[in-house]
Amino acid sequence: MRADPSQAEPHDVLIHVCVTCRRADDDADAPRPGARLHRALADALPAGMALRPVECLGNCRRSCTVAVSAPGCWTYVFGDLVAESGTEVLAAAALLAGSTDGLMPWRGRPEPFKRGMIARIPPLLDHKEAAE
Amino acid sequence: MRADPSQAEPHDVLIHVCVTCRRADDDADAPRPGARLHRALADALPAGMALRPVECLGNCRRSCTVAVSAPGCWTYVFGDLVAESGTEVLAAAALLAGSTDGLMPWRGRPEPFKRGMIARIPPLLDHKEAAE
Repeated sequence: MRADPSQAEPHDVLIHVCVTCRRADDDADAPRPGARLHRALADALPAGMALRPVECLGNCRRSCTVAVSAPGCWTYVFGDLVAESGTEVLAAAALLAGSTDGLMPWRGRPEPFKRGMIARIPPLLDHKEAAE
Repeated sequence: MRADPSQAEPHDVLIHVCVTCRRADDDADAPRPGARLHRALADALPAGMALRPVECLGNCRRSCTVAVSAPGCWTYVFGDLVAESGTEVLAAAALLAGSTDGLMPWRGRPEPFKRGMIARIPPLLDHKEAAE
């Protein structure tokens, strides 16, 4: 799936965080849990990881939501997270960063990242290549 | 979000289809609905679109599942589809192909693509750019 895995490790990981995520019973005037998660990640982000806030990752039913991507790897969307999930998000991102086959290993995943997968998307090849 | 939208239209669209998708009450020995959807799409695929089968897009709770991507555009994952959803998948893919802002327009979406969004992921920038 990856062009040349040996050239790409460790991967730079990109973490998208939905900052508009909240649950129906959350106080509408309080900082949104997704925004609090984003802030916690920004405060703890290690080298080799990038962070981007997003207004809606489309997973409103099972917030909070993050998407974790790395070059040549699958992109993973996880939900059912909370404002306090920062440490686990970074652990999962580090797992993808160290992947040898483009997949996030199951072993070592924090518990919310075993049961909270919303979707995963293969690395996007050049479209012409995919069409051949 | 896109570097230069005027250079990128119409986009080549890439459709991923989960070919292992089936519901709990489906006959385990019958062709899987996801595989039937993939076959229908392959038979009707227009120019400018590419199709790739995938074993599991991680949305097992709400199959059948497709992911629709295009250069510079958001990637969309849709679920709650059926083997007979091919025409609607192609209509949604055509909407993304004609997008002027990288988003799939709401107007004109087939009904299953209004209520069946599982996730959407921004176009992946260069990670270094995202980190700045």
